[in-house]
Amino acid sequence: MHRILSNQLPQHVGETVTVAGWVHRRRVLANVTFVILRDRGGLLQIVTRHDETQEEQVVEVTGKVVANSVAPGGVELVEPVFTVLGPAEPPPVELFRPELKASLPVLLDHAAVALRHPARRKVFAASAAVVGAFRAALDEQGFTEVFTPKIVGSATESGANVFQLDYFQQKAYLAQSPQFYKQTMVGVFERVYEVGPVFRAEPHDTSRHLATYTSLDAELGFIESHRDVMAVLTEVIRAMVGAVNNHGYDVSMPVDVPTLHFAEALKIAGAPEDEPDLAPEHERALGEWALAEHGSDFVFVEGYPMRKRPFYTHPQPGEPRWSNSFDLLFRGLELVTGGQRLHRHADYLAALAREGQDPAPLRTYLEAFQHGMPPHGGFAIGLERFMARVTGAANVRETTLFPRDLHRVAP
Amino acid sequence: MHRILSNQLPQHVGETVTVAGWVHRRRVLANVTFVILRDRGGLLQIVTRHDETQEEQVVEVTGKVVANSVAPGGVELVEPVFTVLGPAEPPPVELFRPELKASLPVLLDHAAVALRHPARRKVFAASAAVVGAFRAALDEQGFTEVFTPKIVGSATESGANVFQLDYFQQKAYLAQSPQFYKQTMVGVFERVYEVGPVFRAEPHDTSRHLATYTSLDAELGFIESHRDVMAVLTEVIRAMVGAVNNHGYDVSMPVDVPTLHFAEALKIAGAPEDEPDLAPEHERALGEWALAEHGSDFVFVEGYPMRKRPFYTHPQPGEPRWSNSFDLLFRGLELVTGGQRLHRHADYLAALAREGQDPAPLRTYLEAFQHGMPPHGGFAIGLERFMARVTGAANVRETTLFPRDLHRVAP
Repeated sequence: MHRILSNQLPQHVGETVTVAGWVHRRRVLANVTFVILRDRGGLLQIVTRHDETQEEQVVEVTGKVVANSVAPGGVELVEPVFTVLGPAEPPPVELFRPELKASLPVLLDHAAVALRHPARRKVFAASAAVVGAFRAALDEQGFTEVFTPKIVGSATESGANVFQLDYFQQKAYLAQSPQFYKQTMVGVFERVYEVGPVFRAEPHDTSRHLATYTSLDAELGFIESHRDVMAVLTEVIRAMVGAVNNHGYDVSMPVDVPTLHFAEALKIAGAPEDEPDLAPEHERALGEWALAEHGSDFVFVEGYPMRKRPFYTHPQPGEPRWSNSFDLLFRGLELVTGGQRLHRHADYLAALAREGQDPAPLRTYLEAFQHGMPPHGGFAIGLERFMARVTGAANVRETTLFPRDLHRVAP
Repeated sequence: MHRILSNQLPQHVGETVTVAGWVHRRRVLANVTFVILRDRGGLLQIVTRHDETQEEQVVEVTGKVVANSVAPGGVELVEPVFTVLGPAEPPPVELFRPELKASLPVLLDHAAVALRHPARRKVFAASAAVVGAFRAALDEQGFTEVFTPKIVGSATESGANVFQLDYFQQKAYLAQSPQFYKQTMVGVFERVYEVGPVFRAEPHDTSRHLATYTSLDAELGFIESHRDVMAVLTEVIRAMVGAVNNHGYDVSMPVDVPTLHFAEALKIAGAPEDEPDLAPEHERALGEWALAEHGSDFVFVEGYPMRKRPFYTHPQPGEPRWSNSFDLLFRGLELVTGGQRLHRHADYLAALAREGQDPAPLRTYLEAFQHGMPPHGGFAIGLERFMARVTGAANVRETTLFPRDLHRVAP
C-alpha cells in the first residue's frame, strides 16, 4: 500500500487514496457516521454509512478524497473501505475528548494509552524538538557529543541522594550528573555536551522532583569567566525557545536577557542581604520583575555565595565570598545552574581540604586537573522542568513520558 | 583575547595572533625548541628560543604566523609569548608519540588523560558524528526522539542479567533495552528513536561485552513486514557509514546490501541445516562471503528460527518456524538485531503462554496492545560495537570512553 498521511490529504482531492491510523472518535448520526482517524500527521474525517469501527482500533482505509470546508483540513474521505490492522478494547481514558479529563495518577498509570491524546503528544513532540535545538546550537559552536557512564564507583558529587546498585559484588551507584566526566572531556574536545538520564534518590514527594530526568549538559574550555558560559547558554536557550514557539507555545526572550548579581537579586526580591540562597518566593519575585521590567521570561542571577555552591565552583576574582556561578530563572523558577569551575589541581586539593572532604575517592577525576586543564565552565538544563515551564504544567510529571518518583516505578 | 584555532592559522600568515591549547610535544634542539601545541583544531608548531613549557601544560601563546612548508598545516608561530593557563605534571602515558604504547588497562585506568591522544580522540569524534547521522537519517523519515526510563519495576525482557537497585525500599532494575517503551511509543508517534544507555549484568569477561553501552534504537509502525524495517535501517547505516568515512575510515556499503534467508546463510557458512542460530565462525564466513561476492562490509540475514528470538517476535507468515526478524552482520559480526513484532494483544498472550511466562509483570506493557497497535518493528544498534568494527579495534573497550565491565567501574 502507498499510505497517505492525514496532513497530505488536501493535495489529493478527487483521488482514491489509502490512509491508516487509529479510530480517534466516532460521531454516530441517524444516517451517517463520522469517523475521525488519528495518524502522525493529525486528524482526518471519514464519512461512512456502514460503521463497525471501535475507538483506538487501528485501521487502514481506502476511499475518495473530497473537499469539505467544515472538515479538519478542509477535506474528508468518502466511500471508505475499512481493514482492521489492530483490534482494540475500549481505552482506559477518553481519548476522543478535546481535553483529557482523567486525574494525573490515572494518566500516568495508563501512560501507554493516555500519551496518544493530541494534547499529551504535543508536549513530547515539542520536547523532542527542544533537544534537537539544544544539540544544533552547540554543534554550530564546535561542541562534540559525548556518552559518559551512568554507573559510577563512588558517590562523589554530593554523597547524598544516590541510588546504590548490586554491581558484580562491588558497590556502585547511579550517576547523579555527568559533571566530572564532562569536565574531563574538556581536556579532550574543549567543548562537549551530553543528553542523558541523571539519577537522584530524592526522598521528596513534590511537583518539582523526579528520581530520574533528562539532563542537557554542556561544558567548555578556554573561557575568561562564567560570562562566556552564559553567552553560550543564551544562544542554546534561544534555540530551544524557538523550537517550542514553533510548536505553538509562547515564550518571551528578549535579545538581552536581564542579568543581576546575587546581592542585587536579593534586594529586588525584598530578601535580607545575608540570605545565602534564593528561596522559591524570591525566584518568583525575580520572575515577575524580569517580565514587568524587561518583557523577559528569563533572568540570570550570577555571583551566588560560594558556601552554597559545590566544591568545584570557581570564586569571583577579588571577592572570594561570591562565586563565578549563575542560575537562569525561567518564569520564576530555577531552570539552569552553571558557572566557571576550578581548573588547577592545587585549587581542587585546597577546596576539598576546606570542606573536610577526602580527595581519595576523587582520584581518577582529579587526574585530569593534575595534567593540564584550561579555565572552563558549563551548565545543565533539566529537559522536563523546561517543558513544565513552557506548557504551564503544575507538575513536572506531566512533561515526563514515564516518570519515576518515590512511589512510582511503572509503567 | 580573540583566540585563533590551529586549523585557522594558514589564513593569518603575516599577522600576530593568539592561540591556546595543550603542549603536545617539545623537540629541543641546540639553539631552538619546537613546541607542538594541540587544540581542538589539530596541531600547530611554535618556534622558540626560550622554552619553559611542560608537556600537557595549557598555554596561551601570542606570536607571529609565518609560512613554513615543513610545519603542520604549512605555517608556524614565531616570536611567541607564552602564558600558562593550566599547570601540568608529566602525563601518565606518553601522549606525544604518534601511537600510544601503553596497554589497554593502562589506557583505561588513565582515560582522563589518554583520551587526549589524537588517535583516541579521532575514534570518539567519529562516534559523535555517527550518532548525529543516525538521528538525522531518522528525522528525515518522520521519526520522533523519545526519552524512556532506565529504571524499571520488573526484570521483564529476559529475566537474566539485570542489575538490581535499591529503589526507595522497592525492588527495581536497570533497563536492559528500551524495547517495550519504544513499542509503546509507536502508539503515540508511529515512528520513534532513542539514543541512550542500556544495562546488561553480563557475567562474561570478553572483548565484546560491556555492562553498559549506548544503544541506538528505532521502532516504526504501519509496516508490511520486517523488510520495511530493513529498508529504514539500510538508510540509517548508510548515513552512519558516510559519517565515519568522512572521518578518515573506510567502510564499504554497496547500493544493495546482500540479504540471505537464515537457511541460505547456514549453507553458505557450511553449517548443519538444523542449527538454531549462527555461531561466531558462521558470522565470520558470511562476512567473508559478502565482501568477496558483493564488495560489501554488510550482509543481512533474515528469517531466524522463532525459538531463538524473543517472545514478541512476529513469525514468518505461512512458515511459523521462521521469524520476520533479521540481523545485520558488519565485517562478520552481528551489529544490529531487528524485526517485526507481534502487535495484537491476543498474540502476546498466546506467545507468553507458549513460553510459560506469566503475563502479570508485563501488564502495563501489554496495555498498549490491548488498545490498538499497528503492525510494527524496529532495530537496535550498539554504538561502541559499530565503532569497534569501523576502527578494527580488537576490544569494544577501545571504542568506549569510560567502559564498565565485570571488573571495571572506574574511572
